[in-house]
Amino acid sequence: MMPASPPRGGQTFVLRPAAWLRAVVRVEMLAVGKELLIGRTLNTNAHWAGKRLARMGSMLREVTTVDDDLVEIASAFRTIVRRAPDFLVVVGGLGPTPDDMTLKGVADALGVELKRNEAALEMIKEHYAKRGLGKVELTPSRLKMATLPAGAEPLRNDWGTAPAVRIPMGKTVVFCLPGVPLEMRGTFRRSVEPEIRRKLGKMHRKYITFKLEGVLESVLAPAIGEELRKHPGAYIKSHPRGIREGVSRIELDIAVVGEDKRGAFAEADAVAKEMEKSVESLGGRVKARRAQGD
Amino acid sequence: MMPASPPRGGQTFVLRPAAWLRAVVRVEMLAVGKELLIGRTLNTNAHWAGKRLARMGSMLREVTTVDDDLVEIASAFRTIVRRAPDFLVVVGGLGPTPDDMTLKGVADALGVELKRNEAALEMIKEHYAKRGLGKVELTPSRLKMATLPAGAEPLRNDWGTAPAVRIPMGKTVVFCLPGVPLEMRGTFRRSVEPEIRRKLGKMHRKYITFKLEGVLESVLAPAIGEELRKHPGAYIKSHPRGIREGVSRIELDIAVVGEDKRGAFAEADAVAKEMEKSVESLGGRVKARRAQGD
Repeated sequence: MMPASPPRGGQTFVLRPAAWLRAVVRVEMLAVGKELLIGRTLNTNAHWAGKRLARMGSMLREVTTVDDDLVEIASAFRTIVRRAPDFLVVVGGLGPTPDDMTLKGVADALGVELKRNEAALEMIKEHYAKRGLGKVELTPSRLKMATLPAGAEPLRNDWGTAPAVRIPMGKTVVFCLPGVPLEMRGTFRRSVEPEIRRKLGKMHRKYITFKLEGVLESVLAPAIGEELRKHPGAYIKSHPRGIREGVSRIELDIAVVGEDKRGAFAEADAVAKEMEKSVESLGGRVKARRAQGD
Repeated sequence: MMPASPPRGGQTFVLRPAAWLRAVVRVEMLAVGKELLIGRTLNTNAHWAGKRLARMGSMLREVTTVDDDLVEIASAFRTIVRRAPDFLVVVGGLGPTPDDMTLKGVADALGVELKRNEAALEMIKEHYAKRGLGKVELTPSRLKMATLPAGAEPLRNDWGTAPAVRIPMGKTVVFCLPGVPLEMRGTFRRSVEPEIRRKLGKMHRKYITFKLEGVLESVLAPAIGEELRKHPGAYIKSHPRGIREGVSRIELDIAVVGEDKRGAFAEADAVAKEMEKSVESLGGRVKARRAQGD
């Protein structure tokens, strides 16, 4: 399966910074919830948001996941804000139960008070009214969802009770979204995406995935290194998928993102073509090819 | 569906620190890989490891996910090590390709050199020999997988090529594991778990999950708060699962972890019984109950 001596054996200690618009807009996520840390719940929110952002030509630059714990939330929040991302999306912990303590943690980190927000309260009342629950008593558990850090703005959540929250703080815009996936996705689409898109501008991305067979990752590595040197703006990454019956399987991702659609697409296509040739010259085969372009 | 006035309306701003052995052994994960940040790959490694640790009576205290980027890896590593966890499990980026730069990032953060490790090299040679690939040329891509931070110890990886790595540094033991799930799980089970278990001691956990219907989370919240005040060592968390045909659905998790098996189990059972009574008195129903005890 493997040629005795791979034709390219060049230096591969390139260790270059990752491409993909790394400097343009920095978006981070802080995911809050013990269920994510004890294997109860897969963090599909980070996965979903990362994919949405990648389609826009952006990405999540870092995801931090912490426990339902005031000290941990406040400390992680402070650490992230020190990096001054353009956007910080905090997910989870906005609900009515004692474990929902995200807004208190954020207020502690910001050094501001939590206070009743009348607009948020209206949203919550409206939510119950719409559900046909009639006149609902505003118990402390419900008032809690309308109790926001000073300076925060509530954002409509048409998919659940707790409003999302927007907090501008210097260079960084902070969004706090509910953790229930339906609510997270709805509020992200409605309030987070448009603002990131405005800052990012229109970006184009071409993303090509190959399924390869018959070439080991260690044999392919120098060809990837060489291609990255020729195309420093491209993203090229191999994902080994195991060796079955002596045949190595790899998925190879190629992507180029840019403001210039034609340029980005042409470069991605060129890289794909060159990688395909390399794979074949190394004794491998391309079994499938999938492309996505926006 | 909802009583006009919930019988318990007490103060719920408890915001207590999370229970579950928070202080005993702190384990953190640093997951490296752009595929996790662009929605290409779900972080099943964090989910799996969190579940394994939870079964032992521990948990992941924090998960940090970063890009394949030297600066980001080194910076996240430094931030985590400042928190002095007992164990830091770094996952991903050990392979032969240019994007695999975890060990360089760790070496940078530690201020040590990367150097050829002869034991690691033997493991890699053995791996190729076992796969029947015969005499394999030690190209730079392959030597890279045997190039470790000074002071590191390679750990057998029987499921892939790149050895895992153990680096003791003061209070913290650092493990670097390959990111391919099969390899991550194998090396975690073989090398990480036994060492954490030795430090943690034998812990027992009872975990009970209820499926509830007919009670809103905001109605249940005060009862959870009250129960947590009575059982400060217990973990009680509700996961809203939406409202279908006017009926609210919730999953309620209850867990107690402790060295004393009988005590932990009895407390979890008592909490479950009391919560069940609360749910019924609030007009809800327990539709299903699942229990796990180790």
